[in-house]
Amino acid sequence: MNSFLSLDEGSHLATFQAGIYGPKLEKSLNDKGFTLGHFPQSFEYSTLGGWIAARSAGQQSNRYGKIEEILTSLKLITPTGTVETLREPASSTGPELNRIFAGSEGLFGIITEATIKVHRLPETRKYFGIVFPSFSIGVDFIREVNHREIPTSMIRLSDKNETRLYKTLGSLGKKETPVRWVKNQIQNRILQWKSLGDNKCVILLGLDGTKEDVSQNFSKIKPIIRKHQGLYAGTRLGEQWIHSRYNMPFLRNHLMENGIGVDTMETSTTYDRVLRLHQEGIASLEKSIPGSIAMCHISHSYHEGACLYYTIIFPMDEKKPADQWFKMKRIISETFFQNGAPISHHHGVGFDHKTWYERATSKPALFGLRAFKKEIDKKEILNPGKVFY
Amino acid sequence: MNSFLSLDEGSHLATFQAGIYGPKLEKSLNDKGFTLGHFPQSFEYSTLGGWIAARSAGQQSNRYGKIEEILTSLKLITPTGTVETLREPASSTGPELNRIFAGSEGLFGIITEATIKVHRLPETRKYFGIVFPSFSIGVDFIREVNHREIPTSMIRLSDKNETRLYKTLGSLGKKETPVRWVKNQIQNRILQWKSLGDNKCVILLGLDGTKEDVSQNFSKIKPIIRKHQGLYAGTRLGEQWIHSRYNMPFLRNHLMENGIGVDTMETSTTYDRVLRLHQEGIASLEKSIPGSIAMCHISHSYHEGACLYYTIIFPMDEKKPADQWFKMKRIISETFFQNGAPISHHHGVGFDHKTWYERATSKPALFGLRAFKKEIDKKEILNPGKVFY
Repeated sequence: MNSFLSLDEGSHLATFQAGIYGPKLEKSLNDKGFTLGHFPQSFEYSTLGGWIAARSAGQQSNRYGKIEEILTSLKLITPTGTVETLREPASSTGPELNRIFAGSEGLFGIITEATIKVHRLPETRKYFGIVFPSFSIGVDFIREVNHREIPTSMIRLSDKNETRLYKTLGSLGKKETPVRWVKNQIQNRILQWKSLGDNKCVILLGLDGTKEDVSQNFSKIKPIIRKHQGLYAGTRLGEQWIHSRYNMPFLRNHLMENGIGVDTMETSTTYDRVLRLHQEGIASLEKSIPGSIAMCHISHSYHEGACLYYTIIFPMDEKKPADQWFKMKRIISETFFQNGAPISHHHGVGFDHKTWYERATSKPALFGLRAFKKEIDKKEILNPGKVFY
Repeated sequence: MNSFLSLDEGSHLATFQAGIYGPKLEKSLNDKGFTLGHFPQSFEYSTLGGWIAARSAGQQSNRYGKIEEILTSLKLITPTGTVETLREPASSTGPELNRIFAGSEGLFGIITEATIKVHRLPETRKYFGIVFPSFSIGVDFIREVNHREIPTSMIRLSDKNETRLYKTLGSLGKKETPVRWVKNQIQNRILQWKSLGDNKCVILLGLDGTKEDVSQNFSKIKPIIRKHQGLYAGTRLGEQWIHSRYNMPFLRNHLMENGIGVDTMETSTTYDRVLRLHQEGIASLEKSIPGSIAMCHISHSYHEGACLYYTIIFPMDEKKPADQWFKMKRIISETFFQNGAPISHHHGVGFDHKTWYERATSKPALFGLRAFKKEIDKKEILNPGKVFY
């Protein structure tokens, strides 16, 4: 269930069994001069089938697309038979089956095979930092780059809290551990942070492609940086990020073993609502757990809006950690819901998000999905109690 | 039901009532400096709701996307209540509802409102012709432009028969009518065409964008033209095409009134199968009606493949025109089906394509869609007998 079945070099399509993990899949393609370009933070421990089932996004999805856009056809085993979708670039034949099974999180069947779009390994890449005076100005920059249709692989904008965290983590001395630093931050946050008055925000921007394209795109981005009072901060930050991009979950585990809770949650919204949702999300999180620090970055951006990715760091309630977490989760989910923003941009629904997903989904559509499920899985054996069932 | 409801300039999104026709919609946006960029051949007589219901493609969809990609959210009235999808750039919340209702062809409800992505009117455009030695080489050119990731608005490759038709139509004297020309062609086709040995094929390529982008993209395309032995044929062809792009259906009506049948059908396939499907499609059509002329063009192209759009011109059987048409339709549809190609790329399914759509769709998915329909439209009043129901 984890084999590389075929590569169609002419059509830039590859077919894999869906149980293949990220590193093996990517290496199989690299060996032939191709890349999938799909790098979720869980890359090392997640599979192609899992990505499709949960509508995953990767860190370079600005360039390569979310997994549902990368998907060309799939094979799915259901209790009532096998589903195979056509290997077609586009069609106008009824509802789009790939988009029904992508995101189905196991409720309709098990994805066993998929044909996905691949790309030639880019000739070069340039990842660099830019410092902006504020989050709001950073958002304006992102919007302009997207509307100017400059192809980027990644534009990641950290808000002021996240910018400070990364800055401090990057400058930690050998004697200071991340745990000690975070504890210190939590204790002193009101005194220290609120008085600094420093709203600076960092963007990490990535370009991949031919040398010609990367150079031309960088030239188009430079005047937009200047227009928005940005300061080009060189490529060292970008290289550091590439080097450590899968490490964050490990840091989280380390902190949690030391009594410091960490969680993340993400949504998306259109540009007109990004700033309000950013502020309300941060406020909701910090209100939900006294003494917590909340921060946010824009991880993906589009023609019409962006993904807001929040992190909360908090002193764990050692007696009732579950109650503490559920309260926080409820409050931030309610904030997303009240803003008309989806309960997830790329983490999926599962059980934790089910309540808000169902509330946000119009009844006829919800009942229709359940009827689809019931028809395909008559004995209701597939992942019961999740998403919408 | 045909109002322009709002424009969100910051998010480049516009909201319309779905009954609005193409010209009014496009003009409303143009007046504000924007464009939808969606120009199906039926533009003047089709509506936004119809485009979404049938997963329409426009002539510049290479640049702006098919309508399901342009769609951000919609409102749909169903017998069991109203459905509204979230105004979100992206999410990972279950099956993608927009992609269930796009392509539903009225089976689930009536689309009454939609929010769609709009673009600033491009600063400039450059549409030009290129002549290639053969269809096969033209396909290689298209593939390379797509894999080189050069943004184009349109790449339309006519095969040798279509190239000859357009060439002749373009050079008609005032005394010669299209009807006389086509009749003549049909009578003399074996003698004339088969002996010419001229395989030349024309590509019409369109670029839209800023002056800088159009100029850079043209520079990237030039060496690819040379590599594939293409001959740059200037912009006159492009201007002619823009001027007359909605006229083809009128020519068809004119021919049919004169006993000459014309029909079109389209599908899509991956690059590895384009040439075989092109040949088999032409052969099927010409075999299905003795004395007919079949031709084809690539109307849309993608990372992994392209849309093949066929035209057949034939002497109408005045006694049994329906029998003649059904036979032809059956034979070409069977050819698409046997090649694993969808029964339509942008015309939709309706009644004519239902048989082949159902055969190409795996049973569990087909039954699931019917269950979805039955749940949402319990009395089965919406467009019965179409698509999959």
